[in-house]
Amino acid sequence: MDITELQAYMDASPFIQHAGMMVTAIDKEAETLTMTMPLKPEFERAPGSGQFHGGPIAALIDTAGCFGLIMVQGHGVPTINFRTDYLRPAVNTDLRAEVVVRRVGRTVGVVDVDVYDDNNKLIAVGRGTFGSQGG
Amino acid sequence: MDITELQAYMDASPFIQHAGMMVTAIDKEAETLTMTMPLKPEFERAPGSGQFHGGPIAALIDTAGCFGLIMVQGHGVPTINFRTDYLRPAVNTDLRAEVVVRRVGRTVGVVDVDVYDDNNKLIAVGRGTFGSQGG
Amino acid sequence: MDITELQAYMDASPFIQHAGMMVTAIDKEAETLTMTMPLKPEFERAPGSGQFHGGPIAALIDTAGCFGLIMVQGHGVPTINFRTDYLRPAVNTDLRAEVVVRRVGRTVGVVDVDVYDDNNKLIAVGRGTFGSQGG
Amino acid sequence: MDITELQAYMDASPFIQHAGMMVTAIDKEAETLTMTMPLKPEFERAPGSGQFHGGPIAALIDTAGCFGLIMVQGHGVPTINFRTDYLRPAVNTDLRAEVVVRRVGRTVGVVDVDVYDDNNKLIAVGRGTFGSQGG
Repeated sequence: MDITELQAYMDASPFIQHAGMMVTAIDKEAETLTMTMPLKPEFERAPGSGQFHGGPIAALIDTAGCFGLIMVQGHGVPTINFRTDYLRPAVNTDLRAEVVVRRVGRTVGVVDVDVYDDNNKLIAVGRGTFGSQGG
Repeated sequence: MDITELQAYMDASPFIQHAGMMVTAIDKEAETLTMTMPLKPEFERAPGSGQFHGGPIAALIDTAGCFGLIMVQGHGVPTINFRTDYLRPAVNTDLRAEVVVRRVGRTVGVVDVDVYDDNNKLIAVGRGTFGSQGG
Repeated sequence: MDITELQAYMDASPFIQHAGMMVTAIDKEAETLTMTMPLKPEFERAPGSGQFHGGPIAALIDTAGCFGLIMVQGHGVPTINFRTDYLRPAVNTDLRAEVVVRRVGRTVGVVDVDVYDDNNKLIAVGRGTFGSQGG
Repeated sequence: MDITELQAYMDASPFIQHAGMMVTAIDKEAETLTMTMPLKPEFERAPGSGQFHGGPIAALIDTAGCFGLIMVQGHGVPTINFRTDYLRPAVNTDLRAEVVVRRVGRTVGVVDVDVYDDNNKLIAVGRGTFGSQGG
């Protein structure tokens, strides 16, 4: 998929569309992708703080990692699990997730997501496993 | 803090208040806590699916784990990192997070969060480390 | 598999056999399993400390989680990933891993492992995903 | 610490010394470090397979991450938690861990560890949090 197709796929999800996530760059050779998310009032930890609650940051990591694999594989895959490490507060800034697909195996893929603020400070890092899990 | 104080603390956060998270039971002796989150339209993965996107589930785990420690310690602590494992889709259901504080150390605490649907099916499990991280 | 078969499977691995890991109890209904590991001189963090280095504890979690699924499924599965949280030092003690299979899905399983010392103090907790990952 | 001091620190640990781990390169500016571990008979998953069991790989990640922070901070820190993702089998090869310190905070540090085989294939990735955790 190209950027337009990925964004359309994203916008079809009420959650992603409501969160305002945008895919802004992809590189299929390098298997990297960039996704952004704006600071919205309902993402604030404390009123008037301008600081992101961690929840939306984790959601960005989950979504960005998933779409890294969608870009590579051409179809959606469920998240199996992921880890979120918060490194710095994100205050009065939008967020930019830099995705690197580390491995695409037969049944699962592993993806890294680094999250930066507008000053290119590293806010959080994520690592997830995505694949076909059923019941 | 008792339930009323914990809920007031939660409602002071625009993110938590908007997500509709409610603390419904606490046990300070056992160091357990129950938190709920309703299915809201903007939490849906696909339109009309009634299925939670993973992002809000991860946000519930982060928040519930954090408030498990707040209950025990009496003050807030930042999330250092956490892991989210998705076990089953959550469809047409609210969510209930069962929190167990596993360890409160000098500088960090470890908390487990099991997330159930309305039929008591295990939807996701989370494990986080919370503590005093600074710059 | 019963305990004797599981132990034979374990002893066929030079690593597990050398580490001295033993399966001491299983419950196929509850999907739980107990595995022990002795303190060996080459597991010590500092000379004469009697304290386990974290590495063998992580290896016990990986192995115990894997054999929890082997007990349930009847065949081996590779570890996809796992998380290790260290809660207390393990000093002058053997270790006992209590395994609980949380979910067996179509392609992956999720397992929890709690590690105790001889005084039933919780030393570490592990959580892993196991399944069929190929190339 | 320089390489000689780090190696002496490592060799003082019976576990690390027995595992044969060696620090082979450091860059204090970039906050990176390289550590190797040989294939030993007692690390084998199956007899004669020449394949590493996952346990020693996880132990390498834990140790390498820890020494990344020791290099930066000049003193030892306990591992709080870490995640290990296995990407490919490691067969008839030594292992090389490439460590990158992602963040050194006031109380915890976050470190990434990529593990390669002799053909520069990515075998496993690790991410850990290290810091001062007490009782």
